[in-house]
Amino acid sequence: MIPARIIEQKRDGHTLEPEALAAFLEGYLRGEVPDYQMAAFLMAVYLRGMDDAETDVLVRCMLESGSVLDLSNLPGPRIDKHSTGGVGDNVSLVLGPLAAELGLFVPMIAGRGLGHTGGTLDKLEAIPGFRTDLSVARFKEIVRKVGYAVMGQTTEIAPLDRKLYAMRDVTGTVSSIPLIAASIMSKKLAEGLTGLLLDVKTGSGAFITEDERAAELAAKMVAIGRARGLETVALLTAMDRPLGVAVGNGLEVEEAVRCLRGEGPSDLRELVLVQAAEMLRLGDPSCDALSARSRAEAALASGAPFDRFVRLVEAQGGDVRAAERPERLRTAPVQAEVRADRSGTVLEVAPRPLGEALIVLGGGRKMMHQPVDPGVGFEVRVRPGDVVAPNSLLGVVHAKDEAGARFGADALTRAARIGRAGEPVVNRPLLCGRIAPEPREAGALA
Amino acid sequence: MIPARIIEQKRDGHTLEPEALAAFLEGYLRGEVPDYQMAAFLMAVYLRGMDDAETDVLVRCMLESGSVLDLSNLPGPRIDKHSTGGVGDNVSLVLGPLAAELGLFVPMIAGRGLGHTGGTLDKLEAIPGFRTDLSVARFKEIVRKVGYAVMGQTTEIAPLDRKLYAMRDVTGTVSSIPLIAASIMSKKLAEGLTGLLLDVKTGSGAFITEDERAAELAAKMVAIGRARGLETVALLTAMDRPLGVAVGNGLEVEEAVRCLRGEGPSDLRELVLVQAAEMLRLGDPSCDALSARSRAEAALASGAPFDRFVRLVEAQGGDVRAAERPERLRTAPVQAEVRADRSGTVLEVAPRPLGEALIVLGGGRKMMHQPVDPGVGFEVRVRPGDVVAPNSLLGVVHAKDEAGARFGADALTRAARIGRAGEPVVNRPLLCGRIAPEPREAGALA
Repeated sequence: MIPARIIEQKRDGHTLEPEALAAFLEGYLRGEVPDYQMAAFLMAVYLRGMDDAETDVLVRCMLESGSVLDLSNLPGPRIDKHSTGGVGDNVSLVLGPLAAELGLFVPMIAGRGLGHTGGTLDKLEAIPGFRTDLSVARFKEIVRKVGYAVMGQTTEIAPLDRKLYAMRDVTGTVSSIPLIAASIMSKKLAEGLTGLLLDVKTGSGAFITEDERAAELAAKMVAIGRARGLETVALLTAMDRPLGVAVGNGLEVEEAVRCLRGEGPSDLRELVLVQAAEMLRLGDPSCDALSARSRAEAALASGAPFDRFVRLVEAQGGDVRAAERPERLRTAPVQAEVRADRSGTVLEVAPRPLGEALIVLGGGRKMMHQPVDPGVGFEVRVRPGDVVAPNSLLGVVHAKDEAGARFGADALTRAARIGRAGEPVVNRPLLCGRIAPEPREAGALA
Repeated sequence: MIPARIIEQKRDGHTLEPEALAAFLEGYLRGEVPDYQMAAFLMAVYLRGMDDAETDVLVRCMLESGSVLDLSNLPGPRIDKHSTGGVGDNVSLVLGPLAAELGLFVPMIAGRGLGHTGGTLDKLEAIPGFRTDLSVARFKEIVRKVGYAVMGQTTEIAPLDRKLYAMRDVTGTVSSIPLIAASIMSKKLAEGLTGLLLDVKTGSGAFITEDERAAELAAKMVAIGRARGLETVALLTAMDRPLGVAVGNGLEVEEAVRCLRGEGPSDLRELVLVQAAEMLRLGDPSCDALSARSRAEAALASGAPFDRFVRLVEAQGGDVRAAERPERLRTAPVQAEVRADRSGTVLEVAPRPLGEALIVLGGGRKMMHQPVDPGVGFEVRVRPGDVVAPNSLLGVVHAKDEAGARFGADALTRAARIGRAGEPVVNRPLLCGRIAPEPREAGALA
């Protein structure tokens, strides 16, 4: 294997031999192939792509570079869910205990906020005392006892992916479909799952904004899962507006608790139920779509998932009073209402500017390892299509001071774009598509 | 200037702002932009290209990274010639003294063999004692006294080009037209010339094998010269067969001496005369094409350029007896005739396999800084279109032992492909095209 020849073949759009590609990747992991050759290779992959066989080699090398969790002695299906990232996406906080209540074991290895999007670890850490840096042994123990647990990625999982991701981040090669797909799937395959649900976001607030490319990413990940024997289903869901009302770590925990108690925004509730039903069917393929949906609705309505959430908070060292009375998480000193300055129709609530403004408010990171302020954020009280009058409430900014509140109010006013009354508004449906390895019966989307 | 943003812009096919591109390149030269970001950038350039304005920024940064020779006190035009590299291309050895005889000053900064092609420095060093590692002061002195001199690139010339070239060599980004053009032109612009003739090879033995791409490279280099005020003309010449008869360092010096004495192969002589006339007209734009040609022919016929060659050999420390009796350079212990094994027409004499076989014989390098054996090589005695009978002489292999001779004979037999008698043979004309900044009068090609 001569590294420059591998680079040239990919540069010229040829398909690489599996052995040669594996030798190149393993050479990089061992430090024999230098960073600059990998950087040139990644750019060639970005511009020329990778077919399914090549992507499978990449996934395999990433997976084999680390260890795989052994959860095989859990007495039930092991199903996780992964979202490609959005604004106000706190589904996992509700879905984890709900899926566990449905008899699944959910070993959630979650991430932090990335770019303008939030992360499950940051959200849960808004609860005082909540720890996500668990040992693998403790993680397994909590999964067994509570039915689910949430921790950050350990250094044993897919070290080649971590090395490649750091390189992609500084060489303009992040947003490549095969590279994203391999990165996500190698980590999820390392969880030792029996089934995986992917929530692929599409729209202006997603990392991949075009529906076609999002569908391509979803299909690629489903193909990877199938090739490696992991039952995988992908949903394409709307991220052209924030999900729910809350944007900000503590506010999103509060909203998730409300959802667990049968309240909360209808779009969050709907996405939780859709995803819970999919996870249930991944765990039990004999269950049809309608019964899965009913079981998910009944479980959520029972209040048991909320109790399970409280048990998780306790198991991971968090203050259960914050879980029980999550309005305690409203710690921002300034809370300012934002009101419309004109009448008309809300044409758009742009998620990306809100996610970026959250970072400026202190609720996200400009650099790795920065602390985040769990109290700041937005309650977004309008949806696209709403008709507003002058002085209608658009939302509430939670900020650490008056200057932050003014900045946040300005950001929310610009994100919630108001057009003339009657102007048509086109939104993506909440659920835009579903990609699964084989066709299911009609009504699966319902 | 954020390096990753520059890479992304080029990746996406956008044109870079001159200031941003310059900052990126200067950051790389200073070591602030790491190799891996440059590697990703070079691959993006390879696949997306660079427009003339971007290429000019690259050339300027390369040029300004080092120093420019000051030859302005020479009493005449300063004209150099550069070939993009071929097999058996010893034109410079004849052209240098001929151009000097025509009143031009020729400061030749030449190269070594690269890949399957030979280099002027290696050829001249076949003459015992010949030194090409001159000081700049000594180089200038010889140019002034003899009218020309030949040395290797100094570390003061275009260090950014050297750094980039080393990176391109290991990242599959060598054969990019803007990168090749900028690399060549930055070095030639550093010679402080008043005019430059480019010999851009095209055909299977050139680095760029397709006529269209070779023409594109030629046009790009002419545009660079014009943009920076250097009068530049490019010729496209055939490299679908070796030039002349000799392939190998000592053999090519011998052939060059024969050409300087009015003998030698007609294709070599023709290319020398065409190029000498072009250089003459670069030095004196009022000279028309026909008189330039006559003056070049007369000067070559006078024998004076040979005397000048002997003076150069003496000035650069070489053994003048080898210049005067170049058959002394036939130092290979084994010289074996190669004969046809069938009758028919020679359809092709493939230059690249011969250049590659020369490396195996020891006459070229597999790695940088390897010594080369000046005695080995080929005399190629057939041209495409020749009709041969069984036992007709195809050529002579010069090798260091019998095994080498057998290997060389096999290589020559396969390079000189014989088809059935009467099969049509299509060769490129020796001179395939001419690219100059502005139109000249009719007959310029003659």
